[in-house]
Amino acid sequence: MQAPALIGLDWGTSSCRAWLMAATGDVLARNDTCPGILAVPGGDFDAAFEALVGPWLAVHPDLPVLASGMITSRNGWVETPYLPLPVTVQDLAQSLTPHRTAQGRLIHFITGIATGLDRLPDVMRGEETELVGHIVGNASGSGVFVMPGTHSKWARADDGAIQGFETFMTGEFYAILHQHSILGRLAVDGAYSPEAFLSGVRASAAQEGSLLSRAFSARTLTLFNRLAADQIGDYLSGILIGEEIAAGLAAHPPGAQITIIGRGDLAERYRIALHGHGCVALSTPPGLARRGHVEIARQAGMLA
Amino acid sequence: MQAPALIGLDWGTSSCRAWLMAATGDVLARNDTCPGILAVPGGDFDAAFEALVGPWLAVHPDLPVLASGMITSRNGWVETPYLPLPVTVQDLAQSLTPHRTAQGRLIHFITGIATGLDRLPDVMRGEETELVGHIVGNASGSGVFVMPGTHSKWARADDGAIQGFETFMTGEFYAILHQHSILGRLAVDGAYSPEAFLSGVRASAAQEGSLLSRAFSARTLTLFNRLAADQIGDYLSGILIGEEIAAGLAAHPPGAQITIIGRGDLAERYRIALHGHGCVALSTPPGLARRGHVEIARQAGMLA
Repeated sequence: MQAPALIGLDWGTSSCRAWLMAATGDVLARNDTCPGILAVPGGDFDAAFEALVGPWLAVHPDLPVLASGMITSRNGWVETPYLPLPVTVQDLAQSLTPHRTAQGRLIHFITGIATGLDRLPDVMRGEETELVGHIVGNASGSGVFVMPGTHSKWARADDGAIQGFETFMTGEFYAILHQHSILGRLAVDGAYSPEAFLSGVRASAAQEGSLLSRAFSARTLTLFNRLAADQIGDYLSGILIGEEIAAGLAAHPPGAQITIIGRGDLAERYRIALHGHGCVALSTPPGLARRGHVEIARQAGMLA
Repeated sequence: MQAPALIGLDWGTSSCRAWLMAATGDVLARNDTCPGILAVPGGDFDAAFEALVGPWLAVHPDLPVLASGMITSRNGWVETPYLPLPVTVQDLAQSLTPHRTAQGRLIHFITGIATGLDRLPDVMRGEETELVGHIVGNASGSGVFVMPGTHSKWARADDGAIQGFETFMTGEFYAILHQHSILGRLAVDGAYSPEAFLSGVRASAAQEGSLLSRAFSARTLTLFNRLAADQIGDYLSGILIGEEIAAGLAAHPPGAQITIIGRGDLAERYRIALHGHGCVALSTPPGLARRGHVEIARQAGMLA
């Protein structure tokens, strides 16, 4: 077995993942039992941290510990200032925030990044670590990335630096429209309908008019029997993901290669929607967050 | 007192208004006690109708009765087919659907209208009656109209005919974002902030990017202390109404005159937002629905 060299935590709003890693980034042990920041009992992050990685630190007390994600937000453990763009792995390594826990453990927080500060600001906490995890291992250090989720992120990197990004509330809009709007009340559960999904993507592709208007077509199409009740959810998903992709692509040349950072059904929907827009969609291997931890730790001189 | 000549019902999803009118459209009596179509006890529209206007018909059994609104929708009393555009007051009068109630009363339903049937359909039921109520009394029979609400409608009329319209789910998006999204969870109640509202309108004015992205600025602006928690609601309202107006105006020449059909605080927000877009905003006198009933009844030969 390789020697443990680093503990990494990806501590987000609704989940937390911890890894005991070798200097290569290989995972020696993992622990996903800690709650997300909003569910930490009594907001006692010290206790949650100790329960999570205390056993590893008892055996390896001198291991560096890095944490990324919403844990550094206003609702987290220690709020850290956002780093303005452009941001490289070196910038993140030089901006680590050390913190001593109640039990005397030393932890280094990776801070989030911000853009648009002179107009409408945008922020991320956590995704920047995944991005540098990918960029550093990428020959050109460049690309356009989409990270699907509740609040999807689009990002652009050049020469190893994150140069721009934008947040889309796509997943949250879907959830609340599906649960609370008239569109959701018309919908019934059913098997995934790729036709309905793509039909929604196409409706948003031209990006004419407004989402406020296009969304209403989930209702009118059912009135004219062109959409079944069990297709409404997938159509609405297509409308929203299509809106995000049309807006995300507008900033890039036609036929751009887009790298999807994410897994599972949602990533697959983005792949289909990107193909519907004539784009090449690239995928990434898993483990970008811990890859980011390793690269930042290396830059910070924490790895032997 | 003038002689009663017509009974008009504006029977919508959440409310119902009934008027006993003279041939001039003057209101001789009114009754707003009937529930909207979704709240009619047991779906017994016959009983609800009888309770609402039975007393008037007992005295004036031969009066024509017209009803407009969602009462002719799939969830209403009698579903009637949509009339395709263009639609004039004559078209609506020639398309009345007669119906005999369980108590033997004769009622004529005004049907809704539809557009975009070869692509994304759009529909309205009720607003068409208000529109013709305005257009007929309007020298040119032309104009661009916005009817603010849960599902706002924009409409265009030329030469006395409704030529186009579009629905925006602005009010419903606001309600569910405010009640169920992370943006609403950050918001606290406060006095109306015209600055926050206009700031949201301006953010949407350029119509660059996507609403999915702009909405997130209600969160990021608070992170950077550029928006107070008690301003989030008004900012979000501005983002959404601004999005609707930018999309609505895109179909019309710059500086167009826009007529707002509606009253109260919401109409006032639209007026402010239209001014923010450099538009002249016109208002209408109240009573367009019953004015529409009178004009349609006259065209149908129901008035002496």
